Amino acid sequence: MVAAARRPVTPVRVRVVDGATNTDRPDRLVTEEPLEIRVHGPRQEPRPLAVTMRTPGNDFELAVGFLTTEQLIEPGGVASVAYCLAGEGAQEYNIVTVAVRHAVVIPGRNFTVNASCGLCGATTLDDALRDVAPVGDGPRVARSMLVTLPDRLREHQTVFDATGGLHAAGLFTTTGELIVLREDVGRHNALDKVVGHLALQGRLPAHDTILAVSGRVSYEIVQKAAVAGIPVLCAVSAPSSLAVDAARRVRQTVIGFLRGDRFNVYTNPDRLDLER
Amino acid sequence: MVAAARRPVTPVRVRVVDGATNTDRPDRLVTEEPLEIRVHGPRQEPRPLAVTMRTPGNDFELAVGFLTTEQLIEPGGVASVAYCLAGEGAQEYNIVTVAVRHAVVIPGRNFTVNASCGLCGATTLDDALRDVAPVGDGPRVARSMLVTLPDRLREHQTVFDATGGLHAAGLFTTTGELIVLREDVGRHNALDKVVGHLALQGRLPAHDTILAVSGRVSYEIVQKAAVAGIPVLCAVSAPSSLAVDAARRVRQTVIGFLRGDRFNVYTNPDRLDLER
Repeated sequence: MVAAARRPVTPVRVRVVDGATNTDRPDRLVTEEPLEIRVHGPRQEPRPLAVTMRTPGNDFELAVGFLTTEQLIEPGGVASVAYCLAGEGAQEYNIVTVAVRHAVVIPGRNFTVNASCGLCGATTLDDALRDVAPVGDGPRVARSMLVTLPDRLREHQTVFDATGGLHAAGLFTTTGELIVLREDVGRHNALDKVVGHLALQGRLPAHDTILAVSGRVSYEIVQKAAVAGIPVLCAVSAPSSLAVDAARRVRQTVIGFLRGDRFNVYTNPDRLDLER
Repeated sequence: MVAAARRPVTPVRVRVVDGATNTDRPDRLVTEEPLEIRVHGPRQEPRPLAVTMRTPGNDFELAVGFLTTEQLIEPGGVASVAYCLAGEGAQEYNIVTVAVRHAVVIPGRNFTVNASCGLCGATTLDDALRDVAPVGDGPRVARSMLVTLPDRLREHQTVFDATGGLHAAGLFTTTGELIVLREDVGRHNALDKVVGHLALQGRLPAHDTILAVSGRVSYEIVQKAAVAGIPVLCAVSAPSSLAVDAARRVRQTVIGFLRGDRFNVYTNPDRLDLER
């Protein structure tokens, strides 16, 4: 028996109420399913590291990206990625196992408390960011290019168009060409998929790139992007206080409320060329 | 030395770019800080259970609500809630300790993997919801009242007005009166604060109430609301597939895309009176 892989969009019947009228019709929802990520080194047993609620699709990228941005594996250290085989050889599409070239050492901080939070067990921001190198000095980014990013992001959000229900993270070159875009019900999952894509292609660190996200910028977005070496972060909505504090420490440029011809720069405006 | 409690809004300097002009001005960000939740029973040592990134404010409600919706403590079982004392008697505002009347037993599922995910370690939805009782049959809710909820929610979102950066969860009576509203950078935290508020007032289960949330409805929102006994869930945006599956199982009514005079009903429409 082979279990079917889940699709990113799930059909549903919905009752649409509009004033005094109501009708039943088919609709589509964004799929949300748990993914368990397991990891092992040579001659180690696979060990469950985290469960994340995610939108199926690009699961291998998600698993590798998560392990990379949480600094649990070295970039380039992945030997193989596979869906688990459950009893009687059935494929289990909600469990991904990552084999790495070196033995896995789980860091001292209490990582397991919350898989999506890079601050767990760290007592200060300095502690939490101790192993995150500041991003390099470049690039210079033109204002006229920046303001085009929200439209470019929306253009490629195919699952959002179908369901209206999820986050996107898109990585662009300094001239505004899309490198990769991923969508997910989880804000951090969309970014982990982007970073996993780069990791599997041997393209980390992602110097001279710009990350655009559909929603807010939280601490974990800054931290994960910094680990991937991404120097510029743009969002349609607001950053949090901790996101801005963290970005200052890792020399990242954070831009928020990027809408129409306007945006706010919260950190490191030296990367922006406002004249062109 | 007494550390200052953090406020929900943090002042910042921002460079506002508008076309070819740019100016520096003061702005306000939503505060994001880690909160560690510790718990202990009589004659037990406090044990760190989870770290969540949250907006400071109503921290005791958040801690009690989290423990309640994750079914780690019984409603009514809280003996005391306190901020930790760090070395030399300094108050530590990012650690809350909850003392409960009975010894704490951590359930078998691998709870610690992800503090915000009720599905961790459970292999199926049935397993995950095994201990969540279906919500009761009532109430009947008028369409004309439902469509007023998004405006009522926005009206009371004070931190959002200042920062544009966070989620809200508001609990209403069947006639649309606000019982309690909480805001947070974390969607699930806003709901946990609402449930914690009720728990501390001895008002659980919350039969005959309607929960309105500012964003999407994910699985964990359905699960946490069901544990609190909340029968009707409304959102301005879309539910996920797993949210709808879970709501069917616990007999919750889920409404999405509640905007203007329109909304979609995904589950259990029998609670809605569409005639008035």
